[in-house]
Parts: sequence; C-alpha cells; structure tokens
Amino acid sequence: MRRFIPLLAVILPGVAAAAPSPSEIVAQAPDSDWATVPADRLLVMTLGTGARVVIELAPQFSPVHVSNIEHLARAHWWDGGAIIRVQDNYVVQWAPRDEKATPPAGFVAHPPAEYDQPKHDIPFMSLGFSDPYAPRSGFAAGWPVAGDADRVWPAQCYGTIGVGRDMPPDTGDGQELYAVNAEAPRQLDRNLAVVGRVLSGMEFLGALPRGTGALGFYTNKTQNIAIRDVTMATDLPTAQQPRLQVMRTESPSFSAYLYARANRTDPFFVHAAHGISLCNVPLPVRPQPADAVAAGH
Amino acid sequence: MRRFIPLLAVILPGVAAAAPSPSEIVAQAPDSDWATVPADRLLVMTLGTGARVVIELAPQFSPVHVSNIEHLARAHWWDGGAIIRVQDNYVVQWAPRDEKATPPAGFVAHPPAEYDQPKHDIPFMSLGFSDPYAPRSGFAAGWPVAGDADRVWPAQCYGTIGVGRDMPPDTGDGQELYAVNAEAPRQLDRNLAVVGRVLSGMEFLGALPRGTGALGFYTNKTQNIAIRDVTMATDLPTAQQPRLQVMRTESPSFSAYLYARANRTDPFFVHAAHGISLCNVPLPVRPQPADAVAAGH
Repeated sequence: MRRFIPLLAVILPGVAAAAPSPSEIVAQAPDSDWATVPADRLLVMTLGTGARVVIELAPQFSPVHVSNIEHLARAHWWDGGAIIRVQDNYVVQWAPRDEKATPPAGFVAHPPAEYDQPKHDIPFMSLGFSDPYAPRSGFAAGWPVAGDADRVWPAQCYGTIGVGRDMPPDTGDGQELYAVNAEAPRQLDRNLAVVGRVLSGMEFLGALPRGTGALGFYTNKTQNIAIRDVTMATDLPTAQQPRLQVMRTESPSFSAYLYARANRTDPFFVHAAHGISLCNVPLPVRPQPADAVAAGH
Repeated sequence: MRRFIPLLAVILPGVAAAAPSPSEIVAQAPDSDWATVPADRLLVMTLGTGARVVIELAPQFSPVHVSNIEHLARAHWWDGGAIIRVQDNYVVQWAPRDEKATPPAGFVAHPPAEYDQPKHDIPFMSLGFSDPYAPRSGFAAGWPVAGDADRVWPAQCYGTIGVGRDMPPDTGDGQELYAVNAEAPRQLDRNLAVVGRVLSGMEFLGALPRGTGALGFYTNKTQNIAIRDVTMATDLPTAQQPRLQVMRTESPSFSAYLYARANRTDPFFVHAAHGISLCNVPLPVRPQPADAVAAGH
C-alpha cells in the first residue's frame, strides 16, 4: 500500500530550461501511461443542442450515490430534464424531468454521508506542495484528493460532479447533480458527495448562460437548458460509446507533467512559481487510439 | 506602513456555530467598510449584445500598461473590436478593430516588465493560510497579492485582467487584454502584466462560447464576439458612469468575511476546511448606495 509519497523528491532531478512543457509531456506520453476508462464508469449527458458531456463516475468515493445515479440513468430519469441553475464562478446544476415521480427499484432514498473515507482505504500520492484546505493533498488512482491524519476525501475542482442536497443530515439522493464551473470551491470538500468528473464536454457546461435568480437559478422555465438524455455508456450502441483515456497519475508521465506545471521553464515563462495547487493540475484526457480500440484493450 | 499582519490571530476569537455566513457579513457591512471606486479607475466594455463589463484598472501594479489602456480607450481603439479567443478553464481574450493602426500619442510601444514590485512599496496583509505558489500571500489595498522576501505581485484570479503578449522580452503593449475565466492560473503570476479586474459583468465573459481552435481561438471571424465600445467611465455621461463600491480589505468586515469563508459554520456545512486559497476570497462588490451618490462621496 502506498502512502503519502513526496513526488518531487524522486523525479526529474536537475531539470533545466530545456525541459519539455506540460503539453509536450502529454503529447509524448507512451500508451502505457494512459488508462482507458471502462464504459461502465461513463455517464453520457446529451443536451438539447446535441452537445455531449461525458462524465466518469466515482463509485470508489460514493458507492451508494453512484449506484443511485446508475439506476436513475437506466430509468431515463433525466431524459427531458433540464439544467436549472448556473451560478457564475460556482456550479451548474441539473434536475430530472419529474422529481416527484417514483424512483426505480434499487434506488436508495437516503444514502449515507459518503464524504470521506479512512486513510488506509485509499493509496495516496502527495502533491508535494502545501494546500490551504487540508494537511495533505495529492492523487489517488487518478483523482485529486485531500486528507488529514485519519481520513481522505475527493477534492472539488473544475469539472467535479457532486450531488446537490438540502440541509444535513440529508445528503441528497443523486437526482440533482452539479458540475463546478470555475475556481475550485474547496470549501465544499467533505460537505457534498463527489460522484464523478467531466472528462469531455466541460466547455459546453462552462459556457452556459448564468441564471439571474438567487444562487444562479434560472428565473423561469423558458431559460432552462434542455437535457435530451442521460445514459450509461454501456446502454449506448457500441459505436456511440465514448472511448477515452486518462493519464495514470502513478505513471512517470504524470509525475513529469505535475513537475512541469509547477516549475514552468518553457520559454514563455519569466518566473516559475515552483508550486501548484491541487485543482490546477487538470488530468490529461485523450481519445483512445484507434489501434487500441481495434485490439480491444 | 503595514507589513504582513497575520489576520486570524487578531480577529473574532471564539467564533462559534452562530457566526454569520460570508454573505450575511457582506450584507451587514457598514458603509464605512466600503470604498467607492473612482470613475477614473473604471473601464467600461460594452459587447455587441449590450452586455456591460466594468473593469477596475490597477495602475498601482502596471502604471505604463494602464496608461496605454487609457490612451487606447480614449482613441476608441477597441470600438468595433472583438473577443477572439475563449479557452475553457483559462482565459477570454480580446483585440482592437485594427491592431496595425498607428496608436495614439502618449502610447508606449514597449512598456517595461511590470510584473512585480519591491515589497516595501506595498502594504500587505497576510491571508493567514499557506499558498503553494508563493512564500506569502494576502491583500494589498483591496487586491489579492503574493510575495517573497523581496517582491510583491498581484495574483491572477478569476476575473483578473491581464495583458496578452508574445515571448519575452516583449511584455505586450495593452492592445490585447484577457480575463481569467475559471480556476486561477497562478502560474501566470509575475509572467503577465496585471492591469485590472472585472467588478461586474464577469458572468457575461464567463459564459462565452469556447473557441475550437488551438488555445481556444475562434477559427473564423464569424465566431468572434463583437465589442461595441470600450470607454473610460469618465468619458461617459455622468448618468451612465458605473458607481460601484468594493469592500475595504483592511476593514473589520473583510476580516470577518475572510474568516467566515475559511471556517464555514453556517448550518449547511458539515466540515469546515479551516483554510482558504487566495483566489477563493472574491472581493465583495456592491452598487454605491443612492444616498452616497446624492451626497457625492
């Protein structure tokens, strides 16, 4: 079991001005440093405009909430639903077509508070820089996480998908979800269930008109952004299933990418910060190469 | 002259669960804790849609670049110009109608690198929490800043306005400006001249369609977002001049607001982070109260 491994002490000693930029590192990363996201982890939301948002689910953090989402998607719960709230520099939030309908069998009306986990349950690689929000932060099997001496929790970053809720002890049941649309609202860490992240299509959610009501809610239904459907990728025809790869955070390429983002030496930069915040290390994502698809791995 | 004053040691000892929320603190802040932004510090950009973006200029950080911007605005430099680039989770960038025209008298073609300043030139109040990007960070007369033992520089946060440039040693001349549209790209600190910040209307810039070209540039001119005009507020009729107030960062209300954002105790929150990052403390802005306008202060 890995523990908090200080990344920067072990990688790339003596990198000088000729070091590759973050984007060069991503472009040059070998296939072995990428992992294909299985179709049964992907939720596909198609807006009324046809824009497609692909979400990687995170059952490792919120198994009951994610199970609810899978049940709801299979029951076409959000088909004909809408994005009802866009608060500038905060979140985009959507709702089903009919929140008062009877949920499908298997749906758990009151999930537990899946906000954090015992530290020993999650292998954790340190970011290597201070984090004002937590004693420790880093990456756990591809996800940005923070923690203290006992617990670990997913960080709320740009593109994080979480579960809207009312006041405690209700944790939300997964019918209303949100995506973070700007500066990471890390104050939400351990306060809302993280169920996923946007792997592609965040550019559509980020560009939605802001609501003018309190908290960014649209003030009437004509402003709502239509959702055509939300489907588990496994329920799509094979040819329509997204095939995306994420860089393995335990790979040499990711270490190099993190180091390069924290220590910018590409010629544009006059000063390197020699540091980076957890949510300013966007996980590299790419389409699965065609030959990998053909080989079925 | 103030130096790095650790805020949290001196304010609000013993705050318990009944403490007001950040928004309650803002709503209750007395008039004495607000400062009206003078019209000669305001740049007003009106888009083709009529949406209005009000920018507070920052000559204290970048006097030559800001002087250039004032000269260009008075020469109607951006009237009929366009937003030409919107990169998701990075920046919105705009350009004049004709970048090859002869700039007005007083314009400095090659400004100095106004990226940072000697520490003793800027009173600096500490954030009170760690910052992965700099040894010190906090607020200087209303602005988020970072610093080291010798220098201080403005932080690149959501809504920060900076000057686009080519490779060093060119610093950009102020004709092309950008606004940060998501997660604070603090790697840009000390690498691009900060000339201002959006006080109102960021919700319009944040919602612009992302460009599909490299770096988020629009791929043809029909996609460009038209700019109707960009004007110094002092050149507008009095009735059309924006009258905005910002919370004084040296006020008790701001200390309380910062503390409350870092230590959320409003009932919604299950866990408080007990920390906050520099760019996750949005400066409170409000319309100048009508009676203050009437009294001329």
